[in-house]
Amino acid sequence: MPPSTGVHTVEAATKKVTPCSEQKAPKNIIFMIGDGMGPSYNTAYRYMMDNPATKRMDLVSFDHYLLGTQRTIAEDEHENITDSASAATAMSAGVKTYNNAIAVDNNKAEVKTVLERSKEVGKSTGLVATSEVTHATPAAYGAHDESRKNMPAIADDYYDEMINGKHKVDIILGGGKDYFQRKDRNLIKEFKNDGYKYVGNKKGLLKAASNSKDKQILGLFSPGGMPKMIDRDANTPSLKDMTKTAIKKLDTNKKGFFLMVEGSQIDWAGHANDITGAMSEMRDFDLAFQEAINFAKKDCNTLVIATADHSTGGFSIGANGIYNWFTQPIKQMKHTPEYLRAQLMKDGANVEEIIKANVGFELKPEEMAAIKDAVAAKDATKIENAIEAPVNARSLTGWTTGGHTGEDVNVYGYGPSSSLWRGNIENTDNAKQIFKLIK
Amino acid sequence: MPPSTGVHTVEAATKKVTPCSEQKAPKNIIFMIGDGMGPSYNTAYRYMMDNPATKRMDLVSFDHYLLGTQRTIAEDEHENITDSASAATAMSAGVKTYNNAIAVDNNKAEVKTVLERSKEVGKSTGLVATSEVTHATPAAYGAHDESRKNMPAIADDYYDEMINGKHKVDIILGGGKDYFQRKDRNLIKEFKNDGYKYVGNKKGLLKAASNSKDKQILGLFSPGGMPKMIDRDANTPSLKDMTKTAIKKLDTNKKGFFLMVEGSQIDWAGHANDITGAMSEMRDFDLAFQEAINFAKKDCNTLVIATADHSTGGFSIGANGIYNWFTQPIKQMKHTPEYLRAQLMKDGANVEEIIKANVGFELKPEEMAAIKDAVAAKDATKIENAIEAPVNARSLTGWTTGGHTGEDVNVYGYGPSSSLWRGNIENTDNAKQIFKLIK
Repeated sequence: MPPSTGVHTVEAATKKVTPCSEQKAPKNIIFMIGDGMGPSYNTAYRYMMDNPATKRMDLVSFDHYLLGTQRTIAEDEHENITDSASAATAMSAGVKTYNNAIAVDNNKAEVKTVLERSKEVGKSTGLVATSEVTHATPAAYGAHDESRKNMPAIADDYYDEMINGKHKVDIILGGGKDYFQRKDRNLIKEFKNDGYKYVGNKKGLLKAASNSKDKQILGLFSPGGMPKMIDRDANTPSLKDMTKTAIKKLDTNKKGFFLMVEGSQIDWAGHANDITGAMSEMRDFDLAFQEAINFAKKDCNTLVIATADHSTGGFSIGANGIYNWFTQPIKQMKHTPEYLRAQLMKDGANVEEIIKANVGFELKPEEMAAIKDAVAAKDATKIENAIEAPVNARSLTGWTTGGHTGEDVNVYGYGPSSSLWRGNIENTDNAKQIFKLIK
Repeated sequence: MPPSTGVHTVEAATKKVTPCSEQKAPKNIIFMIGDGMGPSYNTAYRYMMDNPATKRMDLVSFDHYLLGTQRTIAEDEHENITDSASAATAMSAGVKTYNNAIAVDNNKAEVKTVLERSKEVGKSTGLVATSEVTHATPAAYGAHDESRKNMPAIADDYYDEMINGKHKVDIILGGGKDYFQRKDRNLIKEFKNDGYKYVGNKKGLLKAASNSKDKQILGLFSPGGMPKMIDRDANTPSLKDMTKTAIKKLDTNKKGFFLMVEGSQIDWAGHANDITGAMSEMRDFDLAFQEAINFAKKDCNTLVIATADHSTGGFSIGANGIYNWFTQPIKQMKHTPEYLRAQLMKDGANVEEIIKANVGFELKPEEMAAIKDAVAAKDATKIENAIEAPVNARSLTGWTTGGHTGEDVNVYGYGPSSSLWRGNIENTDNAKQIFKLIK
């Protein structure tokens, strides 16, 4: 990305991002959610991507598309900081509800989602996530449940809840195979029987992408959540791979499409206070965002909105009184602490060897000892914490919680009617605007 | 403030805030800086002002005027998180520079500020702050120095640096009398000799405000920083009082004016990890912002921009894994910990009495004991910390640092050309745009 060129940035950016008409209702909508992507994450990601050889800090793609911020508060009897289910229901259905609610209101009545409305009017639809595709955020677009915890029932909803005699989600891509292939039911088989192409790895996904006969796809790439970008193997598609495939398939419908894409694990890394994982997942989300923007720029009839549901971890850029945030220690990590923990807990694992091969900076003796102690105690959380701590300390990353925080989150967008998202909006406004745009 | 009415908010707000033409260059510019007002502070302030009797969270004035965010990074050899001096120089002169720099570039060469340019073209000018009016932020508009620490020299600059034979700042209001009335020099006397009205309390300020003969005013309301809003006595003007007076005086110039207003001590409270003080100063800043907006709405020829220089403290809404942020304990504080510390350190102070009269919730025995121990040790910082801790714990306020943090900060605005501030901008863009608008 080019660095800012000063005052002309504002005008140039405005001109640059509006080559297509902004005034009409879009044919297609791509709604992207960086789960847990509070404002600190967006700035931190810019630090991460900066080319130190250039004088000014380089911009990331999001920076060219900021429209405003949104308020995230839930309408929960007990909690005034939202969870992902309540926030996703606000964004999918325009309804404030309690934490844990999957597209149901405070009376537990089902509420219609923008994905369902899109299918009603004959559009194609898709859900893409790096968590289980039955996790709170995608679930709130394609299912209804009084609790996000009922992931098997959410998977059932994707199959059972028909609209005009058709399955409501045409493209389902993400993790969570265990919720589709169960002892009590095999939804993979049922979807296949109804004409869906099933794919279980990257190769299969790319093949289906280029086979025009595969119109509806169920792709499940891990038993639970997918590996984070930095931990990913060659068999696992990226969020960009999944987004690209989804767009390609959905775009064959003359009536247009609605696609929800979630960068699910920014939040998970935030819960773990794992800055390595957080920045990995920001990168994964950004590449998918760029894919969507590039499509929209060519298409000129697609609205892209990218936002977050809430922030996570109380993450701060800088800590302990020091006026620096260092990305080098984060870049020196070869894997997430979560991934390394799994390696370290294998029988006969050589702790020093694994750590030295994957942590690219020198650990203090007491830091190494803390990891060894945690491994000896077979305490998974303690192991991860012991690996996270040196990265947080060296990068000067601050955290205040293992949960969510309440600050407004950024809203980015491009394409027809994107100006409706300008300013400070309520998270329910996302759905309310989209309902008006779906014709 | 009325609660959000859902989807119509976006359109209604857009219509509501643009009654005057947005396209022309404004005659007057009011640039407002909430020092340390990172995005968490803005959302937290909404929580604070919410009327619990209404179903939805009520909006605060800022929420109607969000234009975007700005990047704050300094160009400092040693630090990648900005201080107030570097950020203010970026906003006043359009130049990225080192931390501590007061309107000088990285070669310590003086750089022209928008205030100076305004005076050059015959506009009136003003500086208003609740810190010493020689503190980093106002200084970077009206003085030049290689270090923010040289506050006597900065006060000298306000008097000595003439533009077209005239003093460059017509209205100077804030704290810091000690930097004007010194052993080596009495700037108050010098300003008075040159026709400035000097005022030292609220009564004097209001009298000068209504006396049309008082065209230039020097108002210094405390030896150092002014008391925070929650601690203010009847002799001390509010930021709104000072802003209102400044506007009234400056608006008599047919060529228009430039006014910088700083809510200085949001930052100071953030450094102290004092949520009581932070919310007090947010309120003070908001009331001044409303004053400026109300003027601009009537005037239709005034641009108002309100933003921050950086965030402070790593403040998070929610902490320790709990999905709540409670405002009640903050509202139950009658004074800031800083104010109470001063009371507690007086000879013969009754600690329990003072604490019970000013902390509106029951302290645990160990919390009271910690305050008593700190008082016995005569340790000012320890006393403040011991009073802050129970408020932070009960409100679930998180902090990660006593310094600044690097996340982008919000930009609010209204009036002619305010749309130039839309999106994500560089802090230097503020000055670059204003230079273009000053005719």
